[in-house]
Formats: sequence, C-alpha cells, structure tokens
Amino acid sequence: MKIALDAMGGDYAPTVTVEGALDTIREYDDLEIILFGDESRIKDELKGKKYPSDRIHIRHASQVVGMQESPVTALRKKKDSSIRRAVDAVKNKEADAVVSAGNSGVAMAAALFVLGTSKGVDRPAIAAIMPTLKGLFVLIDAGANVDCKAENLLQFALMGSSYCSTILNKEKPKVALLSIGEEDVKGNELTREAFKLLKETNLNFVGNIEGKDVFLGGADVVVCDGFIGNIVLKTSEGLAEVIIKMLKREIAGLATGRVGYLLMKPALKNFRKKTDYAEYGGAPLLGINGTCIISHGRSTSRAIRNALRVAVEFSKKKVYEIISEEIIGFHAREKAVIEG
Amino acid sequence: MKIALDAMGGDYAPTVTVEGALDTIREYDDLEIILFGDESRIKDELKGKKYPSDRIHIRHASQVVGMQESPVTALRKKKDSSIRRAVDAVKNKEADAVVSAGNSGVAMAAALFVLGTSKGVDRPAIAAIMPTLKGLFVLIDAGANVDCKAENLLQFALMGSSYCSTILNKEKPKVALLSIGEEDVKGNELTREAFKLLKETNLNFVGNIEGKDVFLGGADVVVCDGFIGNIVLKTSEGLAEVIIKMLKREIAGLATGRVGYLLMKPALKNFRKKTDYAEYGGAPLLGINGTCIISHGRSTSRAIRNALRVAVEFSKKKVYEIISEEIIGFHAREKAVIEG
Repeated sequence: MKIALDAMGGDYAPTVTVEGALDTIREYDDLEIILFGDESRIKDELKGKKYPSDRIHIRHASQVVGMQESPVTALRKKKDSSIRRAVDAVKNKEADAVVSAGNSGVAMAAALFVLGTSKGVDRPAIAAIMPTLKGLFVLIDAGANVDCKAENLLQFALMGSSYCSTILNKEKPKVALLSIGEEDVKGNELTREAFKLLKETNLNFVGNIEGKDVFLGGADVVVCDGFIGNIVLKTSEGLAEVIIKMLKREIAGLATGRVGYLLMKPALKNFRKKTDYAEYGGAPLLGINGTCIISHGRSTSRAIRNALRVAVEFSKKKVYEIISEEIIGFHAREKAVIEG
Repeated sequence: MKIALDAMGGDYAPTVTVEGALDTIREYDDLEIILFGDESRIKDELKGKKYPSDRIHIRHASQVVGMQESPVTALRKKKDSSIRRAVDAVKNKEADAVVSAGNSGVAMAAALFVLGTSKGVDRPAIAAIMPTLKGLFVLIDAGANVDCKAENLLQFALMGSSYCSTILNKEKPKVALLSIGEEDVKGNELTREAFKLLKETNLNFVGNIEGKDVFLGGADVVVCDGFIGNIVLKTSEGLAEVIIKMLKREIAGLATGRVGYLLMKPALKNFRKKTDYAEYGGAPLLGINGTCIISHGRSTSRAIRNALRVAVEFSKKKVYEIISEEIIGFHAREKAVIEG
C-alpha cells in the first residue's frame, strides 16, 4: 500500500510530517510513503535517521500553499505544490490515499477538482471522530460545506453511517440530526426538511439530537451542515483545553494543590489523551473518488502518524468503495420506489 | 421593585421556584415578588417557612403550560396560565420584570405577543452569559430565532454590546461574529452578509471569531443565529459535565485516586461553580418592551435565585431602556447617513 503525504502541509512541516511518516512506516511492513515537497528540506529532516529507505520515497514539488491562500488561486497558480502533487498521485494510481495537514480548504478543493465526487454524491463532507462518555461518534460534516440543502444532509448521513460501521465496527449505527429539540418540528428550515428525508431511509435514524446529549453518546453519527459542524468541533476542542487550564489553575490555588496535582497527574494525562484531537488523527473527506485524509494545521508528529494510520485502515477496509456502493444502492432503491 | 415569577415553570416547580423566591427576597429590602400559579400548591410550599409576607404575593393562575406544548396552542388556549399571567403583569405595570423557567418557547412567544418588540427591533434575542479563561462573555442569540437574516444579526450585536457594557461593566465591548475562519470572506452566506453590516457600525467590531477562541475569551460579545447559539450553549454545557464525569472516572481508576480526589475536591467544586449554568441564572430576552428573564427548565432554586437577581439588576440598571435607546440611536444615525 502506498500513501502520498503532503510533507509541506501544516504549521510545523516538514519536521513533524517527516517524523510522523517515519514513526508510521515502522508499524506496517507493507506500507510505502511518498513524501511530496521541497526535496532538500525533506532530505535535511531525514538526515541521520534510520528508516527503510526502500519504502520512503521523495517527490520534489517546487511550490507550497500557505495556510491563508484561497483554494481558487492555489489551484490555478500552484500546480506544482506539495498538496496538489500528492492528490495527483492518487488520481494517477501512484498512491492509494493522500494525507495533508496543510490548508484544508485547498486540500478539499484539490481532492474535489482532481478526483471528483463519487457517483450519487453532490458534495463531499468531512467526517470527524470525537469522544463521548460512552465511546466515539462521527460528526459529519465537520467543515467542508458552509451552506447546505436537505439533500446534502441526507447524503452526509448515508456516508457517515457507512463510515461509522466500517471504521468503528458498529452495526446499524444510530444516526441523529443535530438540532435544538428532540421533536420532529424543532429545528431550522434545513433540519426540518432533512428530518423528513432521513425518516424515509433504511438508516437507523433516531431523530434529532440536542447539543447537551452529543457528548453523552446519544448517537453514533451526528449529522449537520459544515458551518455548524466546524463550530461544534472547534468550540469543543477549545473548551476541553480551557477546562484543563482552569482546573490546573484551581488546583494550583489550593494549599494541598501540589500533592493533589501530583497524585492526579496520571488521570489528567489519560483524560487529555481521550480528548486530544491528535489521538484521532485526520478526518477523511468522504464522497470523493479516492481516499483523502485531512489533518489539523497544528498537527504534531503524533497527529500525522494517526492520520497516516487512518489512511492505511481506510485503504485496507476499502471504506471509499463501501461508501460509494452504499450511496449507489440508496439511489437505486429510491428510484425503484418512485417507479413502483 | 416588583418581579413577577412564573411559579409553575420548570421541571421542579413550584418547589424550587418558591425556594428561590424566598432566598432572593431576603437579599433585597426593596424587592417584592409576585408568585403566579396554583395558589394551594404555592401555599403548601410556603407553609412553615419564615419570610416577609408583605413582600411575597400570590396570584392564582388556573392553568399550567407543559414543557412540550407548542407556543401557538399555549398562547391561544391557556390565557390563565402562570406564564401568561406573569407576562401580563409586566404589561399592566403591576411588575417591573418577569422570570420563568418554564417552556422557553412559550415564555418567549408570550413576551413577544403581549409586550411587543422594542422600536427598531425586528426579532428579540436571548443573551446568555458564559465563562471563559479570562472572564465572561455574552452569547447572542442563544436560541430565540432559528432562521435569521443579516439584519437580525446586526440588531443582536447592538443589543448584545449594550447589554454587555451595562451588566458586565465593559466599556466598548469587543463584538465578534461566530464563524469558521477569521478572514472577512470566511463563513456562510448569512455571516458574510452580517460581517459587511457590522463593519459599518460604531460598535467595537473585531471581526469573525472561531469556535476554538470563544472560551479563550477572544470576544466580549459573540453574535450568531439562535440555532447555532443554542447548539453551542447546550453542547458546551453537556461537554463540561461529561469532562467532569470522565475526570472523576479517571481519578477513580488510580491507585492514589482516593487521596488525590479528596485533595482535589475543592478545586473541582470551584471549577463546577465557574462552569455551572445555575451560577449565571437566567438569560434575558432582549429587544422586547419590558424585562423578561428565561431560566433553564431544569433550574434549581439556586438558578431561580440567580435569575431573579438578574431581573433585579436589569431593572435597577434600566437595561431595557438603555438598549432601546441604543437601537433607536443607531437607526437615527443610519438614516442621517443615508439622507446625507
């Protein structure tokens, strides 16, 4: 299996991307990683490190896309950028999947433009995995589409359910629509319309889920538009960090704080691990013709390693193919119903 | 000062509403509270308790609105409900403010229908106060309007800024638009449009704020539509609770956990206090002709007391009048600019 890694993508690239690649390559005997980016900088990072050189490849790319560049400009003007070249590698069957921690808007646009959407999918969506009190859930769309139609949410639900059962090994995942009340009639125009569509599918649709129940583990797949999904994702990550900081401050303020903190440190560490985005690595862009994993801009080498792992698992389990079949099957059933 | 309290509103009414009223009445010598609801049940709750009986009044209301009832039906069919009668009391100048922990949709609809919107306001909005690493911020709209126009967000920003400076004593509060990127062009159709309007005001508009920065204290007033606001509010509350539970579980799993927990207990308690919604009591509905404070359905007596305190402070500081003047002033300035 071959994975194309955008070695220049992310705030700490190429240091952490190369590190992450080397950490991952040792885990899988059948894995090859192709590093796209500035050849001399990548070679500098590799210098003095031990690794299976027959399974780590470098492809020079002369351009780098900045974190603030617009997708349109980047796609038009930077055809030799590391991200673009890494996506091209999937298109040309040189690689089975692409991973990038760079400008996520550009990564998505490149995947969409170069690879195209799967049959029956109007808009690809980002599926993020997040922790709850009971286990994990899939948040879809976590940021690919800011303005959506009900039909888009339906497709996100189908893709999210299929992804959840394949990756989290859940049979018939509970799919819910993120809204402001549990009843059918609660929500905004978009969710009320999507509710009607979801009721008619053969998904295990459990109705609306309210914000307060998301982290209690009320659903396996939480569906929303990408604007709200991104806000929920980022707000939650931010809040978890702030809560840890506030707790540390509270502890520091206690007379017994030092002892308490030392005793509690392993618990705090475990907790951080459970809520740390880096643990969950990258989020896949579902609904395109290929496997594309998007990682945080501020990814560490651990986050890159986890994103690469997600890419490996994705390719091994043929998640992309399974989702495509699911969507095609859904449309075929729908057509059959309409034609009676 | 007189406050009308919906004594039957909330999951634990009238027990906690009466308790909250009695706790509050002792704090203010000049306060009178009118309890609206089932007279005999309220009298039962008051039995055996010491309180200044000349400042606690009961007004019998024969009907109660359930938590799941629709606003339209409740308004039409339950004209003698505790919430409706409490709102009527503000209209008739019998009370300076109304507080309800009942069905919030009905409370808002009653306030809107009976009291009407302030001049220059198209839609009232809920302003919730939430904690950050640095202090507090105002989230507006926290749930009154599910589908909004850019013009609505502009009015929320004006009301939120005015509210923040009056209640949180901040001069020129930093007003930000909740979005998915800091740049002007990031966001959905609604926020991009609202961004343009906000740039033209004399508010201290600091641009877009991302989810990750909200709890770091990046803004004093965070503006969004009520659908997203409600989801952010509820998700954050839910997440904070889950984090505490997860931490307790981690601590319990440690060999040193028991000792650590005992040493840390005061810190956890302080932290809970800082993040507990009950501490912040009710959220005002801004933009109506009068003072209406909405409290959580699952309010405790402490939450009711804090909601009553908010109502007292609101009335004393004449927040409603200040906000009305602010909006009228804004429209006058706008008109002057247009007419050149």
